[in-house]
Amino acid sequence: MEENRLQTLKGFRDLMPEDMAIRNEVIKRLKEVFERYGFFELKTPSLEYQEVLLGKYGEEAEKLMYLFEDPGGRSVGLKYDLTVPLARVIANYQELPRPFKRYQIQPVWRAESPQKGRYREFWQCDVDIVGSSSPIADAEIVAVINDSLKALDFSEYEIKINSRQVLFSIMEEAEIPENEWLIAIRILDKLTRKDKEEVKEEYSQKGFSAKQIKMIFDSLDKAKPDSYLEEVISAAKTLGVAEKLSFDSSLARGLDYYTGPIFESVVEEPNVGSVTGGGRYDNLLKDLGGPDLPATGTTVGLDRVAEVIKDKNLWPNLPSIPTKVLVTLFSEDLIENSLKISSELRREGINTEIYEDIKDKLEKQLKYADKKGIPWVVIIGPEEKDKDKLVLKNLKSGDQETVDIQTAVNKLK
Amino acid sequence: MEENRLQTLKGFRDLMPEDMAIRNEVIKRLKEVFERYGFFELKTPSLEYQEVLLGKYGEEAEKLMYLFEDPGGRSVGLKYDLTVPLARVIANYQELPRPFKRYQIQPVWRAESPQKGRYREFWQCDVDIVGSSSPIADAEIVAVINDSLKALDFSEYEIKINSRQVLFSIMEEAEIPENEWLIAIRILDKLTRKDKEEVKEEYSQKGFSAKQIKMIFDSLDKAKPDSYLEEVISAAKTLGVAEKLSFDSSLARGLDYYTGPIFESVVEEPNVGSVTGGGRYDNLLKDLGGPDLPATGTTVGLDRVAEVIKDKNLWPNLPSIPTKVLVTLFSEDLIENSLKISSELRREGINTEIYEDIKDKLEKQLKYADKKGIPWVVIIGPEEKDKDKLVLKNLKSGDQETVDIQTAVNKLK
Repeated sequence: MEENRLQTLKGFRDLMPEDMAIRNEVIKRLKEVFERYGFFELKTPSLEYQEVLLGKYGEEAEKLMYLFEDPGGRSVGLKYDLTVPLARVIANYQELPRPFKRYQIQPVWRAESPQKGRYREFWQCDVDIVGSSSPIADAEIVAVINDSLKALDFSEYEIKINSRQVLFSIMEEAEIPENEWLIAIRILDKLTRKDKEEVKEEYSQKGFSAKQIKMIFDSLDKAKPDSYLEEVISAAKTLGVAEKLSFDSSLARGLDYYTGPIFESVVEEPNVGSVTGGGRYDNLLKDLGGPDLPATGTTVGLDRVAEVIKDKNLWPNLPSIPTKVLVTLFSEDLIENSLKISSELRREGINTEIYEDIKDKLEKQLKYADKKGIPWVVIIGPEEKDKDKLVLKNLKSGDQETVDIQTAVNKLK
Repeated sequence: MEENRLQTLKGFRDLMPEDMAIRNEVIKRLKEVFERYGFFELKTPSLEYQEVLLGKYGEEAEKLMYLFEDPGGRSVGLKYDLTVPLARVIANYQELPRPFKRYQIQPVWRAESPQKGRYREFWQCDVDIVGSSSPIADAEIVAVINDSLKALDFSEYEIKINSRQVLFSIMEEAEIPENEWLIAIRILDKLTRKDKEEVKEEYSQKGFSAKQIKMIFDSLDKAKPDSYLEEVISAAKTLGVAEKLSFDSSLARGLDYYTGPIFESVVEEPNVGSVTGGGRYDNLLKDLGGPDLPATGTTVGLDRVAEVIKDKNLWPNLPSIPTKVLVTLFSEDLIENSLKISSELRREGINTEIYEDIKDKLEKQLKYADKKGIPWVVIIGPEEKDKDKLVLKNLKSGDQETVDIQTAVNKLK
């Protein structure tokens, strides 16, 4: 460990004003969509008993978990995802009305190797319906995804949909032995990133015959949604998802726990890649130790979305800090005037900072506002005081004018 | 450990819809006030190096900390408060403009004995100004407290203010030896909960003479704000805190790290007790390993406030869930109509849930809405479909009427 121990912990990060501005705006817009669809918010503790966490995700995952003893000697761990806590909540609160439609936006912890844009504490954003086996439930999730991407101002995107049943039919049709289906499907999934020839090459390397490969691609081209998936697609279209939704028989995702439809969204403009993923998982809650209830849902890649919006400057008009104006201090005897004006601006709903140190020159005060990204500055000198006015200066344009307080309020609003 | 290991971890809690509704509203209102005063939001990681956490709070505190080794062998711990991470951030980001005015609303972890309303993971809400030694900075904090309590709809409250200097003068005046000042001040602080006679009794038990006790109470009555505190009070009044602010020479708080003014707010209606506490702490950041910068700030008791609002039903009109209306399914051939209506309601900004399971009778669907607390229900039967209308039913009053969609939208808005 060659790390500086008085720093932010390696693999973790402080969220500074600019990050918070985007993140808060992303969360606000997503919550609006989720609540528009009748989902409510749930929060669960950061820590769970190890018995809740272990044996659910496999050994590889357990290596990445933060497991330890609490000061009372309990074996606990930081949560690894939001699905296991959902299963526990469903199991613990039997009296809750079902279907249970919740969204949850909270950090989870995984000790992965740190790399750009990947942290060991990261936010997950899950939307799920537990307790309904209706295709309308899946269609609602697809509609939530569509409205979420629209709400984030993504313009060119596609929501791909497929189902476990379709994938199995393809393999059956191609005469692949049942014990090789999952392997064959995992290779197929690479079509989302690789071209057909590369994928064929991989099939061949993995020991599939030329005839089998041809049959897989033939049946892939002919594949059609099964009747359940047709109902999902039809309902999603009625819910307004029409043009953005497309059936993709090669979409597989982490098929292992999905039992029905699967969906993924890919954003091309700005070029972000996949930002949501999900599907129906009718056995998972039971397997996790929860009750035997069907479920469907999606994850929205909150951190990824927020970073892309920052990197590509997608929201140029979003202020990096909430402060609108700095009221400066001109001289000792004018402090009271500055405080009064600040108070009035705040009463009008304008985010106003007061410069506190009277010993600093006006120039230093303006520099402070500029460095902080505060767009406007108010100056009240003796002349302004006498005329009951103030100087309002825009730091970007450099323009300034002497106005009364009401005019200033209107300009700032 | 006799605990059920598939439950929520002991001392922790799940935040269900009703809790989230209040908590989200509290946070929304507080953030608005903080940003109105020019504070921006900061978030720091849950985990810190033990070197950042240890040796800062004393041994008693360290027993309550969640300390452990991460999967990479680093010695880490869950954060114990928001002040140490603030000191680390100030130390790490030297280029940040100062004064640094941040608010931070995040969970912290302390393994205290669980008791009603106290959890091992609880939210702190801190507002601080780092880098200003001006009385205006303290006055701004007092004004933030005042506006926060108003924003939360508390009606009868008092913001008490005092200072370390005033307390020391009292003890000096009463001829208490300097090495007994802190003991004498800690006893004095009990005047906030006990009456004068009880406190006198305690002084006597702790070995103070009758003469000393008399002198303490005499000088307490005569005590006046020092000049710095006078400036703070005067500026706070100019900022609009006038009637709610009162000088209280017996207020001491955890004096140990405060260096100047101290403030606390007490809410009498509803009877909540103290909900904010803070003061100036010019040496603390340096002592915590940060830079030598003056600072002042307050904590708002977020969990306490949220629980009181829930217990006393202070916000009776706050919906316990965000959903406004449930659109029911009448029969297989009318599903599409229900989906279309839902889509229209959502486009109009109305939070709308669709009942997903066509096999359930209307009665069951209405019961579900009622149990969940959804106030309105929409029914579209064959008659309504033919007339392009819908039945809008209020579940509280039981009233229902057949209206067109636009009328329904207006009613629901």
